Amino acid sequence: MTVRSIAVIGSVAFDTLETPSGRADGELGGSAVHFAVAASFFAPVSLVGPIGDDFPAATREYLVARGIDCSGLEHRPGRTFRWHGRYHEDMNKRDTVALDLGVFAGFAPRIADATRRAPYVFLGNIDPALQRGVLDQFAAPALVGLDTMNHWIDEARGPLEALLERVDVLVINDEEARLLAREDNVVRAARRILALGARRVLVKRGEYGAILFSPSSVFAVPAFPLEQVFDPTGAGDTFAGGMMGHLAATGDADDAALRRAIVYGTVLASFVVEDFGGRRMRTLTRAEIDHRYSQFVALTSF
Amino acid sequence: MTVRSIAVIGSVAFDTLETPSGRADGELGGSAVHFAVAASFFAPVSLVGPIGDDFPAATREYLVARGIDCSGLEHRPGRTFRWHGRYHEDMNKRDTVALDLGVFAGFAPRIADATRRAPYVFLGNIDPALQRGVLDQFAAPALVGLDTMNHWIDEARGPLEALLERVDVLVINDEEARLLAREDNVVRAARRILALGARRVLVKRGEYGAILFSPSSVFAVPAFPLEQVFDPTGAGDTFAGGMMGHLAATGDADDAALRRAIVYGTVLASFVVEDFGGRRMRTLTRAEIDHRYSQFVALTSF
Repeated sequence: MTVRSIAVIGSVAFDTLETPSGRADGELGGSAVHFAVAASFFAPVSLVGPIGDDFPAATREYLVARGIDCSGLEHRPGRTFRWHGRYHEDMNKRDTVALDLGVFAGFAPRIADATRRAPYVFLGNIDPALQRGVLDQFAAPALVGLDTMNHWIDEARGPLEALLERVDVLVINDEEARLLAREDNVVRAARRILALGARRVLVKRGEYGAILFSPSSVFAVPAFPLEQVFDPTGAGDTFAGGMMGHLAATGDADDAALRRAIVYGTVLASFVVEDFGGRRMRTLTRAEIDHRYSQFVALTSF
Repeated sequence: MTVRSIAVIGSVAFDTLETPSGRADGELGGSAVHFAVAASFFAPVSLVGPIGDDFPAATREYLVARGIDCSGLEHRPGRTFRWHGRYHEDMNKRDTVALDLGVFAGFAPRIADATRRAPYVFLGNIDPALQRGVLDQFAAPALVGLDTMNHWIDEARGPLEALLERVDVLVINDEEARLLAREDNVVRAARRILALGARRVLVKRGEYGAILFSPSSVFAVPAFPLEQVFDPTGAGDTFAGGMMGHLAATGDADDAALRRAIVYGTVLASFVVEDFGGRRMRTLTRAEIDHRYSQFVALTSF
């Protein structure tokens, strides 16, 4: 068992979050941060993303204390990305109240030499042209994960499709899978995406769990049932981070390793929704993770 | 292992079905029929429901050939219940184009003496007052399942709640669970329904699977992923029938038996949606069921 290091490239943000449970301002967020914090429970992570003048030293210290390499946090003049979201009573629905890209606009990541040797790479949800530019900077990535969204599927389908053959695990939600494949049925959509070149497609289904499609196997898991979802922000990125983190921790990438890693991702996601933004991650322990993993085994065994 | 017999009480119907895949007229349907056919793969079933003058002898012969006791098919003057439904492209949505209750209106089931000794009873989705009247006729039911719907939760909440303490497995969908419990979160909704007296709550989530809540454990399964859902009609009743049928076949009703039975129900439901109405059940073999059960083990193992 050889622990591998992971590099994640994506957004760093401060979020204003309104949910049926309340409101929080200036919560540390962004897809790369949620991913990195989750992955850091299992493996060394390098976080690459743009920060502004307003990024507090204490926030960086928190990340560094989690063992996250923050040398790739690129300071640029201006404000850090800000997002203000409001969830409906049905928390599967949300509205963006305000969005200020700040220093995230014009982000063109340069990967430091030390980080370029990371064997595991996760390309967060940014312009596919940038994702490609990032990937080209890595020496010999052993496992590449990629996230995207409706906007890029609509606006940058060509560059996105061209990237897929370099992707080991495409992590997208079911709506995105349908849109990318132009296919309503999620099984057929996943098969089509595999045909486009992705080695595996991991479809996130929110409160209903996730489903992994490989050319030769399918793996489905429910989500961990919770009495209260406090704030779903970051659940998908935390899921991906937990999954990639556990894969990196074992150094295996076969089907069995991937399945266990997906369950760890599911477990991490079930914690992050228990409080605003990434707050719950600050107190979460490995013992709690392993306990819920064993609860998940009991939940799904027959 | 002692095989028990099951009595199911509910609707017998002929359906006109329109789905994105096509149209079928006069398909044998109704909740009690779908349940009985699925259960008959595992255990003896008595089918209790009203039929009209238009019920073909050949249809009865098909059911009898499946080992279903049809002595409880109560012939009344008039037409058999007819339903005409039209599914949207998103087959989670459907409209009722036409509905003719026919002999189902005024149905007040009298259970024959031989059937009253059935140890397993499934009360299909009918007026809770009728469900109670049916249950009172059984000598000593060992395991009672019950289905209901929004209409009865809204219009007959008192009688329905009063029944719950006599129910071993309440089988409802997630929307119904939320409505019955007056609680948006499905976990809290199920806990509330357990507090109302049901021994277990089995929540159907359509294409996302099912989740079983007992006072001391929770069991979640995904649905079997299918490349094409041809017609979802009867999936929920087939799921319940497969589940109760397998329970009756083993004679066990502990948590482990119930979990395996739920997987068999999931497998049966995955077949019935492959063709219009109950057509697929006519060719389905036990070998196909067991093969898909083993595929389901592979689908969910980690």
